[in-house]
Amino acid sequence: MKISLEDVAAILREKDHILILSHQYPDGDTLGSAGALCQILQKMGKSARMECSDPIPDKYGYMLSGVAHKDFTPELVVAVDVADEKLLGAKLGAQWGGNIDLCIDHHGSNQRYARQFYVDPSASATAEIIFELAALLGVACDCSIASCIYTGITTDTGCFRYSNTTAATHRIAARLMETGVNAADINRLMFETKSRSRIELERMVLDTLEYYYNDRCAIISITQNMMAKAGADDSDLEGLAPIPRKIEGVLVGITLREKEDGSYKASVRTGPSINASAICARLGGGGHPQASGCSIAAGLEETKKRLLEVVAGFLGEAQ
Amino acid sequence: MKISLEDVAAILREKDHILILSHQYPDGDTLGSAGALCQILQKMGKSARMECSDPIPDKYGYMLSGVAHKDFTPELVVAVDVADEKLLGAKLGAQWGGNIDLCIDHHGSNQRYARQFYVDPSASATAEIIFELAALLGVACDCSIASCIYTGITTDTGCFRYSNTTAATHRIAARLMETGVNAADINRLMFETKSRSRIELERMVLDTLEYYYNDRCAIISITQNMMAKAGADDSDLEGLAPIPRKIEGVLVGITLREKEDGSYKASVRTGPSINASAICARLGGGGHPQASGCSIAAGLEETKKRLLEVVAGFLGEAQ
Repeated sequence: MKISLEDVAAILREKDHILILSHQYPDGDTLGSAGALCQILQKMGKSARMECSDPIPDKYGYMLSGVAHKDFTPELVVAVDVADEKLLGAKLGAQWGGNIDLCIDHHGSNQRYARQFYVDPSASATAEIIFELAALLGVACDCSIASCIYTGITTDTGCFRYSNTTAATHRIAARLMETGVNAADINRLMFETKSRSRIELERMVLDTLEYYYNDRCAIISITQNMMAKAGADDSDLEGLAPIPRKIEGVLVGITLREKEDGSYKASVRTGPSINASAICARLGGGGHPQASGCSIAAGLEETKKRLLEVVAGFLGEAQ
Repeated sequence: MKISLEDVAAILREKDHILILSHQYPDGDTLGSAGALCQILQKMGKSARMECSDPIPDKYGYMLSGVAHKDFTPELVVAVDVADEKLLGAKLGAQWGGNIDLCIDHHGSNQRYARQFYVDPSASATAEIIFELAALLGVACDCSIASCIYTGITTDTGCFRYSNTTAATHRIAARLMETGVNAADINRLMFETKSRSRIELERMVLDTLEYYYNDRCAIISITQNMMAKAGADDSDLEGLAPIPRKIEGVLVGITLREKEDGSYKASVRTGPSINASAICARLGGGGHPQASGCSIAAGLEETKKRLLEVVAGFLGEAQ
C-alpha cells in the first residue's frame, strides 16, 4: 500500500526494533540512506541496524562509524533505495523476500513489493527523502547523519551535475553543510580516487579509440586480456562507457566489452539527435534514448562491423 | 580603496555607460560574472558591454547571447574576477592598465589595483558576488542572467565539489535553478566535453605514467612533441595536472610540462599529509599546501631526478 511520508514517520515511531536493508552492490545512496535512518532511529532511543547482502566497499566505511550494530529480532523490516526485491541480493533476498514491511525509495520503477511503500521519483536520491523524514521525526541532523545524507545525494546526482538535481536538492545540501559536513573530502573520496588498475585500464582502452563516419562515431573496446593485464575488476569499469561520447563532435559513442565467452556487450551513448535505444533494438537490445546496450554473439571485428552498419543508417551514411 | 557591496551598487547606479573587463584566457567565472553584470545593467536601462583580450571559447558562447554589444565611451571601467592587472592580458592591459575604476573579485590574492575594489574571498566565485549585487540593485535574475551566474559558480567550484563551496553557494544555486536554468546541460558542456586533441593527449600522457617510492609518488609528463602530435593547445591541458594524485595510494602526484625552451614546469599535488608548497619551495617555486608548482631549468630526466630527490625527504625515503 502506498503511504505518505507522515505515515512512514508514524510507523517508525511505533516500533522499537528496526532492521534496515540496502540493495546489493551497495552504492552511496542505499548506504547513506540506511546509515542516516539507522542513526536517526538510534537518536530516538530505538534499536536499529543496517544489513546488506554484499560487503560494504571501504570507501563507504565512514558512513558506518556512527552506527552501533545491535542484535535483535526485528519488529519492522525497512528497505531503502531498493527498487525491486530481487535487488536485495541472494542473502537478504532469501531471508526477507516477500516479507518487507516498508520501502522508502526514489526510483519511479519501484516494484511496490513492500507491504507499505513511499516512493518519490522527484527526489534526486532516497537520502533526500530521509532528510525530510528526519524533520518529521523531530530529529536534528548532526554532522554524522548529514554526512550519510550528503553522500547519498552527491553520488546519485553525480555531484549535483545530473538533471535529477533540483532547487530542493541544493537547499538540502546547504542545510547539511551547515552541520559541518566535509563535503570536499566526501566528493574527493567518491569521485576523484581511481585505483591503479583503473588508470592502467584507461590507458589501454584509450589506445583502442577509433573514429568512424567523419568522426561522428567513436568506438573503444575492453577485452578480457586487458582486464587481466590491468588487474582490473568490474568496479574499475565505472565511467568508462561514457568516454567516446564525451569527445567533441561525436554523436554516437560505443564501448565494447568482451564477455568471458569471447562475445561482446556494446554500450551505446548518443547525443540528443540520435536514439541509442533504436540503434540497440536493431541488434536485440534496448534501454534509454541516450544510453542503451546490446549483446552481440561475435568476435571484436565482426561486432564492430554489425554495429557500424546500423549506426550508418542513423547518421545518414551511405553503406 | 576598499568599498562595500552597497557602495558598488551605488557607483553602478550613478553611471550610464559601463565597460566590463574579463581576464585573459577567460574561464566560466570571469565570463559568467561579466555576462550577468552586463545584462543586469542593461535591464536597468544602462549601456554596458563586456570585453576580453582573448577570443571567447565557443563553449561559453551561450553567455554572450543575452548581451547586446553597444559602442560607447565608458564612464566607468569595471574588472570582474581579475586578481591582478597583468591578467587583463596584452590588449586590455595596454588600453586600460592603471585606469580601472572598480574591481569585483573573490581572489584573496587580489592586487588592489583598481581605484575602488570589493573583494570577498569567502565567495566561491565572483559570480556569487554578482548574484548578491543583482539583489542590491533590485534586478530580478531571469534565466539568462542566472545561466551566467550558475556557470561562474559551477566552473569555479568544480560543480560544487571543491572546498570553496559553502551553504551559501548551494542556496544561490537553488535560487538560480528556480529561474529555469538548465544546469544539467551547462554542466555537460563545462565538464563532460573533451576535444579530440585532448583525448589524444590524455592517451599519450597516460603512457608516461611512472610510479616511485612504493607507488606513493606518481609522475606524468607532457612534452612539446606530444602537444604537437595531438594538435593540442593550452586549453587541452585543463584537468591533466590532478591525474597522478587521483590514483589510490599516491601521496605526491607530479605533472611535468615541457616549455618551449625545453625546460620543465612541474605541477605538484599532494594529499593532506604532505606539503606541496614546501616541496616546490625547495626548487624555487611555491603555491598552496596541496597544489603548487615550480620551474626547473633542465631536461626531462634531470627534472625528474631533482624533484624525486626532494620528494624522497617528504616521504621519509632514504636516498
